Amino acid sequence: MAVQKPSIPSGTRDFGPEQMIKRNYIFDTIRDEFKTYGYLPLETPSMEKLSTLLGKYGEEGDKLLFRILNSGDFLSKVPEEKLTVRDSAAVSPVICERGLRYDLTVPFARYVVQHRNDIVFPFKRYQIQPVWRADRPQKGRYREFYQCDVDVVGSRSLIYEVELIQIVESVFTKLGINVTLKVNNRKILYGISEAIGHTDKMMDITVAIDKLEKVGFDNVAQELSVKGIDDNAIEKLKPILELDGDNRSKIETITRVLSVSEIGMKGIGEISAILDYTDVLGINLDIELDLSLARGLNYYTGAIFEVKAKDYAIGSICGGGRYDDLTGIFGMPDTSGVGISFGADRIYDVMEGLGLFPDASKLSTKILFLNFDAVSEKESLKVLRRLRNIGIPSEIYPENAKLKKQMEYANRRKIPFVGMIGEEELKSGTVTVKNMADGSQQKMDLNEIDNFDFGQN
Amino acid sequence: MAVQKPSIPSGTRDFGPEQMIKRNYIFDTIRDEFKTYGYLPLETPSMEKLSTLLGKYGEEGDKLLFRILNSGDFLSKVPEEKLTVRDSAAVSPVICERGLRYDLTVPFARYVVQHRNDIVFPFKRYQIQPVWRADRPQKGRYREFYQCDVDVVGSRSLIYEVELIQIVESVFTKLGINVTLKVNNRKILYGISEAIGHTDKMMDITVAIDKLEKVGFDNVAQELSVKGIDDNAIEKLKPILELDGDNRSKIETITRVLSVSEIGMKGIGEISAILDYTDVLGINLDIELDLSLARGLNYYTGAIFEVKAKDYAIGSICGGGRYDDLTGIFGMPDTSGVGISFGADRIYDVMEGLGLFPDASKLSTKILFLNFDAVSEKESLKVLRRLRNIGIPSEIYPENAKLKKQMEYANRRKIPFVGMIGEEELKSGTVTVKNMADGSQQKMDLNEIDNFDFGQN
Repeated sequence: MAVQKPSIPSGTRDFGPEQMIKRNYIFDTIRDEFKTYGYLPLETPSMEKLSTLLGKYGEEGDKLLFRILNSGDFLSKVPEEKLTVRDSAAVSPVICERGLRYDLTVPFARYVVQHRNDIVFPFKRYQIQPVWRADRPQKGRYREFYQCDVDVVGSRSLIYEVELIQIVESVFTKLGINVTLKVNNRKILYGISEAIGHTDKMMDITVAIDKLEKVGFDNVAQELSVKGIDDNAIEKLKPILELDGDNRSKIETITRVLSVSEIGMKGIGEISAILDYTDVLGINLDIELDLSLARGLNYYTGAIFEVKAKDYAIGSICGGGRYDDLTGIFGMPDTSGVGISFGADRIYDVMEGLGLFPDASKLSTKILFLNFDAVSEKESLKVLRRLRNIGIPSEIYPENAKLKKQMEYANRRKIPFVGMIGEEELKSGTVTVKNMADGSQQKMDLNEIDNFDFGQN
Repeated sequence: MAVQKPSIPSGTRDFGPEQMIKRNYIFDTIRDEFKTYGYLPLETPSMEKLSTLLGKYGEEGDKLLFRILNSGDFLSKVPEEKLTVRDSAAVSPVICERGLRYDLTVPFARYVVQHRNDIVFPFKRYQIQPVWRADRPQKGRYREFYQCDVDVVGSRSLIYEVELIQIVESVFTKLGINVTLKVNNRKILYGISEAIGHTDKMMDITVAIDKLEKVGFDNVAQELSVKGIDDNAIEKLKPILELDGDNRSKIETITRVLSVSEIGMKGIGEISAILDYTDVLGINLDIELDLSLARGLNYYTGAIFEVKAKDYAIGSICGGGRYDDLTGIFGMPDTSGVGISFGADRIYDVMEGLGLFPDASKLSTKILFLNFDAVSEKESLKVLRRLRNIGIPSEIYPENAKLKKQMEYANRRKIPFVGMIGEEELKSGTVTVKNMADGSQQKMDLNEIDNFDFGQN
């Protein structure tokens, strides 16, 4: 066979050991918090029936689904006329019945409906799995990437909004990232549009609020006017657009505008209750009410969340909200839920950019034993066996190579300590441990090494 | 949109919380051992170029690859004549450039060659990821399943064979599964065939050894004769076929037969050295030299390993061996390596069958706080915050529902303790903790609960 120069499909990535150790550090931190808050793990198949996936992500989304070719003689069932005119769009559904999952939300909804009789509600689940999108690859956009979703369905209790806020607080505190949590509520946005008599213009108003800082009130007013919002309504909007101060004073201002909207007042009630909880619990997080926050507006029905890193310029690193009809599309209406999703790739970029990852030496093998000869090797293997039994990642160089080569291996692998059982140590029943960072050496009894401080976390 | 009854593609599985907790228990145990022995994590993309995958798994394997349809107008480049005759086999490579990985070995080989200049050799890596095969689904055979591979490439040192044996010992000891590790060596098998003058019949001889117990010597001799092995050779084989006793006496017998084969004697040397190491280290594992062990015979070049559960009838639950040309197919010859793979699904079945999983209550949320009213809820949330800060998985029922309903939630979720802060507890600054297993209750100061024994592992 001809020799191939190997490579991987564009938009996909290999994660070598150094990246993996850092990625696992992020995933483990997130997973531990999910567990601590009582969320349960779920995994769904990588491939779903296309009937499950199609129509859930809009027309554009359908195009971005990776489709899996049917096995065997897949062309046999294609209608003649579709084939002769090479109608790819019409042929594709005949030759592909399955696709790779596009997100974790639709498979979760499918799972909940399919297993509704076995599930204990409220169902608290987390799911950390890759998803695939046939997007044009570019910086920071990949065709395969992990999502880390945490959701609870089957309860309208605001306690869960508060839980998710606490998870945000814990995860980013543990990762060392300073963040702002932006919150909004879809009911407030609706209430505002209702209060000014333009419930059809909710999205335009939200966009206008977002633009205000950049272009100023006059320009925004003009744009709203072009969109068909009358001057009177724009005047009513003014306090909302110019919203300022802390969350409580913002809420006061908004309340004045949308006191006429029942739904709006419900949204105010929700956000106030959530803020009350965070006060009572002393949640140490910069929470900011931001009416321009509208992610997934057509999807969310209550709280909307978004997390931004304060010290690094990048899009949101976490986000989510409450939805009231996740499972309706699969025939199970009125299932309210709330959830957030952590963006592992962006979190990785923030941590790399700000130097927040722990030293490689903290995360990898702690000690490499040098291999001097057969006798030293056997003694080292015995010590290794003890260290491994107490869970200390440790190795021995596999053969009696030049010491320079062995040391270079320790260096390149960023192993912080080197263990040596040479002739002298064999005689005295000792081992010498060399600190690779400062070159210092310490000789100790063979048994003492079990209690040596390898800088484990 | 019409309501769909949701389901998943045949041969794939949802893993709900109970299964996931058990699966993660297995994966975490395996991963921890890999790390402790200094193996580093690697992840490769789910999809590889078909040029990377094709021709690596034989003709049958090529058919079992899941292929991913090219995006956009995929039919445009298909030659007219292939389309009109509906030649699926010829059209497939034109409309699909990528496939889902079939195992972790070929992507690993591809990775090593592609990144050879950055890798520190010997390269110790582990990889735990799903693979996909378009096999006909049946009991125990799935189209998507995880592999847990651990390999080291770039060294011929037998220390690594010993390390892998130690990993087998540790993993199955920790999981509580009694196992036998069968070992063999491809060089011995070659040596035997060389000693009797039939190097072309190595596979037939191995099969014959395997059948001996079932059909007896005479039948095996007859079968070998049919395969073209002369009586003289069969006579020489007799001591091999009737091999008995412990490993050392088996080795003595084999040595007598294949002393004429240089390669055979090298195999004997390897297996003896490995057994010496296991003796010196006191490895507590039932190791059995089994000449009928031939998995992947065309692939392995030295040691061959297979692990069987002693107390449960199922195929091998772990296996592997040494190979000398993993990366040759991608243009990098002479890279020797050794590795094993753990079969997570079978290990799961063994543990489920023998009741070896820890209680669900050990692996999940430890305590559920009942929700009596707003005041009790706030106090409970404060206690929860402390418990979660010290890493104790804990929850509160999200609303003031009927107590029966709240208790049922705890029961169905198998949460071992229920926390109650009712009117009386509020007055006295206490919390009552109820043990769900025996119904006993214990009242304690609010601060005391941090030190309560929730049966954490």
